[in-house]
Amino acid sequence: MKITIDKNNKAPIYMQIKVEIKKRIYSGELMPYELLPSERKLADELGVNRSTVLNAYRELKAEGLIDSHIGQGTQIMPLENNEEKSVKQPVFPISWHHMLSQEALRAQDTSLINMMKVSSKDKLISFAAGIADPALYPIKSFEAVSSIVNAYSYEPFLHTPVKGLYLLREGICKLMESKGISPVPEEVIVLSGSQQALDLIARNYLDMGDTVIVEEPTYLGALQIFKAAGVKVIGVPVHSKGIRMDILEALITKHKPKFIYTMPTFQNPSGSVMDMAHRLKLLELSYTYQVPIIEDDAYSALRYNGNEIPTLKALDKRGNVLYLNTFSKFLLPGLRIGWLCGPVTVIKQLAIRKQMMDLHANSLGQWLITEYLKNNQLDEHITKIIKVYRIKRDTMVNALQQYAPEGVKWSIPEGGFYIWCELPERIDSKNLLMKAIEAGVAYVPGETFYSGKQGQNFIRLNFSFPSCDDIKKGIKILMKVILDTLEMTKDTASEKVEVNPMF
Amino acid sequence: MKITIDKNNKAPIYMQIKVEIKKRIYSGELMPYELLPSERKLADELGVNRSTVLNAYRELKAEGLIDSHIGQGTQIMPLENNEEKSVKQPVFPISWHHMLSQEALRAQDTSLINMMKVSSKDKLISFAAGIADPALYPIKSFEAVSSIVNAYSYEPFLHTPVKGLYLLREGICKLMESKGISPVPEEVIVLSGSQQALDLIARNYLDMGDTVIVEEPTYLGALQIFKAAGVKVIGVPVHSKGIRMDILEALITKHKPKFIYTMPTFQNPSGSVMDMAHRLKLLELSYTYQVPIIEDDAYSALRYNGNEIPTLKALDKRGNVLYLNTFSKFLLPGLRIGWLCGPVTVIKQLAIRKQMMDLHANSLGQWLITEYLKNNQLDEHITKIIKVYRIKRDTMVNALQQYAPEGVKWSIPEGGFYIWCELPERIDSKNLLMKAIEAGVAYVPGETFYSGKQGQNFIRLNFSFPSCDDIKKGIKILMKVILDTLEMTKDTASEKVEVNPMF
Repeated sequence: MKITIDKNNKAPIYMQIKVEIKKRIYSGELMPYELLPSERKLADELGVNRSTVLNAYRELKAEGLIDSHIGQGTQIMPLENNEEKSVKQPVFPISWHHMLSQEALRAQDTSLINMMKVSSKDKLISFAAGIADPALYPIKSFEAVSSIVNAYSYEPFLHTPVKGLYLLREGICKLMESKGISPVPEEVIVLSGSQQALDLIARNYLDMGDTVIVEEPTYLGALQIFKAAGVKVIGVPVHSKGIRMDILEALITKHKPKFIYTMPTFQNPSGSVMDMAHRLKLLELSYTYQVPIIEDDAYSALRYNGNEIPTLKALDKRGNVLYLNTFSKFLLPGLRIGWLCGPVTVIKQLAIRKQMMDLHANSLGQWLITEYLKNNQLDEHITKIIKVYRIKRDTMVNALQQYAPEGVKWSIPEGGFYIWCELPERIDSKNLLMKAIEAGVAYVPGETFYSGKQGQNFIRLNFSFPSCDDIKKGIKILMKVILDTLEMTKDTASEKVEVNPMF
Repeated sequence: MKITIDKNNKAPIYMQIKVEIKKRIYSGELMPYELLPSERKLADELGVNRSTVLNAYRELKAEGLIDSHIGQGTQIMPLENNEEKSVKQPVFPISWHHMLSQEALRAQDTSLINMMKVSSKDKLISFAAGIADPALYPIKSFEAVSSIVNAYSYEPFLHTPVKGLYLLREGICKLMESKGISPVPEEVIVLSGSQQALDLIARNYLDMGDTVIVEEPTYLGALQIFKAAGVKVIGVPVHSKGIRMDILEALITKHKPKFIYTMPTFQNPSGSVMDMAHRLKLLELSYTYQVPIIEDDAYSALRYNGNEIPTLKALDKRGNVLYLNTFSKFLLPGLRIGWLCGPVTVIKQLAIRKQMMDLHANSLGQWLITEYLKNNQLDEHITKIIKVYRIKRDTMVNALQQYAPEGVKWSIPEGGFYIWCELPERIDSKNLLMKAIEAGVAYVPGETFYSGKQGQNFIRLNFSFPSCDDIKKGIKILMKVILDTLEMTKDTASEKVEVNPMF
């Protein structure tokens, strides 16, 4: 074991040894039950006192990372079940698992974390993420921090108000004006990403046992927030023209929901667009039954064909719509800046809670976007990225047409990031995923977008992030995996039917 | 009324008119019951069709901002009670106030928002904020985004993992090593400010009705989070050597708290430092009763005299301490980057929830701090700012010695941002605040730092943010206000005693 000690480092030597061994345990370089060198041997190797190594080993033991028995030497302990194992110690360690709150127990979904992990794996072609193409980020404009600092000195590194930089709120209002919405800055709160809007709404307006109506399928992040809040989530099916209004009205009268959550334009994951008649009907229902609408408009700027259609917020004249948007999809995601537009009373309420959560969205990101909007660069940028995304969408559609086995169906979305793809019913896309990843392709299984057991034979394919080459290659691989699975299960399926005809 | 219309603007004219009027209503330029010009007159003025103005007025009316009666013209409606008033409309607007969740009703404290507003008021000398001196921000290092982009291309604008950029977590580990803590990156989660740590802990480990022990006085942001979570907050007094351990043990056995929240070094607001004996005793209690400790260490880097003392985390060998820190106090606050260091199982749990809240801390801020730490600039920076803050502290202490009336007492903190100042008992510092602000000085009333009615005759004075000149001027003004109040209330106090001797 090669440990380097830095005598110029302020940290004591024993601690440097401890940290070096700890790092190797967590990285897997030192495996469970592997033997460590004896204290004397390591001390000789490093040219330090034996007591120094002794101290390091003692602390590692206290953390349950190593253990030693007379005559057996000192060995690495398994990291898994660290908690359980260390019960042998004289003082019990805190059982963090038993301390978990009810809310935490409701919110154990790690799908998004896993999705992000999968997307960053090397050599894997990922259709899983919902990320804008990094090659398109207007980096030149955003690295120009010096010019902001020249103009505003330290302001971009200081606090902003809880609701966000006023200049940015003005910029956002202008942006919305071009979409037919006419807010003033007082009706806008800048957020640390639009995901935070859902969290803020849940905490301010949802109690356990309340009901929320969502589209089916819908955005995973919304499902997670509502579940964590202990809210009853009722799904209403979405077809090509939007929410099924007949069903919606019945659900409203039955469940008296507190909110309807919808993505009317380029819905995630289905890509569908709610048509004008459905939008007006939805608002009418909102007025009649006094149910406010959460309109998530993350994708509407990204239209590749077809005609623009007004947002619900633009059509709503009574303040029933809370409108969410983000700079993550049409600009870049790393600054974590989104916003909510709604009645002043709602904005004020959300600000009270936001202040306790993170004080305000990061200042530098707010300043950078403010400058970017001020310089009128956004329209040109969007025109440019639409061209690229249109090509990517078409590339994916063409690849699907070329390689998809019979029984695989997909939509051709007019905008947004995703193709929603239906596989033959006997394929469970969650089971298929492991095979796909082994073959080098990732996607999100359809089930992820439903609150209950549904959508098992759907998959969401993202075309914004991968390159055109990867799209072609990836779809070819994925369709091969599907074809193989279909052929394998063909026999099993028919066999099963024969053996258990009644099931 | 001068309204400018931009014919090149994509937004329709009627909407531009609407927005312009709306802005003037919110800014107060148009006052309640003020008359708007008639539709015909405004249309003539602007050279547009009457129907265009009609449309604008109609939408303003729908939002409850204006109203018109035949023969009386169109007038501005008061913004206050907008909700109540519009009940006259044919369809009732959503009553957002009645929709509030239990959690929201528990969390209506706007003190921090107000504090931030007060601190940004022009010409006011503010001792209220807890903000690092902007003149000391190492802006040159942080505006060098181009160099990061050259090295890492679009990475600083893309997502990072939920737990934070691995490079930053490594940098944070190194930083903590110099404080005698020896974590690996797996034990660290990067947060959107350390305030978020409290929120995450509450949501993952606190249920309504649970108990948390806090110091008395303590950080307002912690009190707010615990209150919002519906948690019973029990205070334990802090003296010059830290928490009163005799009382703490009794409270632990009685209330079985889930956490003890402490700021052992340069406590906010009292400035006190827990000595070694108290630290060891606190850990012993934590081990004996299995109560984990939340150690908030935001200020320990800022020591102006006296000897460094190990953090609880450095002394804790059993993983009972969740350690919080932030770059806001010793570096700059606008990037909103803090961190928590704790057992791997806790880090994993917090990450699940953080992902739903805001996905991850903003990437650019993480990259900037990573580079800054990598370039070993921090030590030099801290040496530099300590010199300045020491002078500021001494300036405030000297000003207090010079101007404070009899009966006013204060601590001389060895570090941190605050002087905790005790006024004669008959002064209520909350009532005094209005007078002080009128005179041109702000501070935070002591009551703010207690969960119950306490500390009414204390004030917290921040010396990091104002300039030395402002400190001298501000303390002089403030002490004059206190002296005047003391002289006024002297009579009333004795009078009262005479009139109602029994009360």
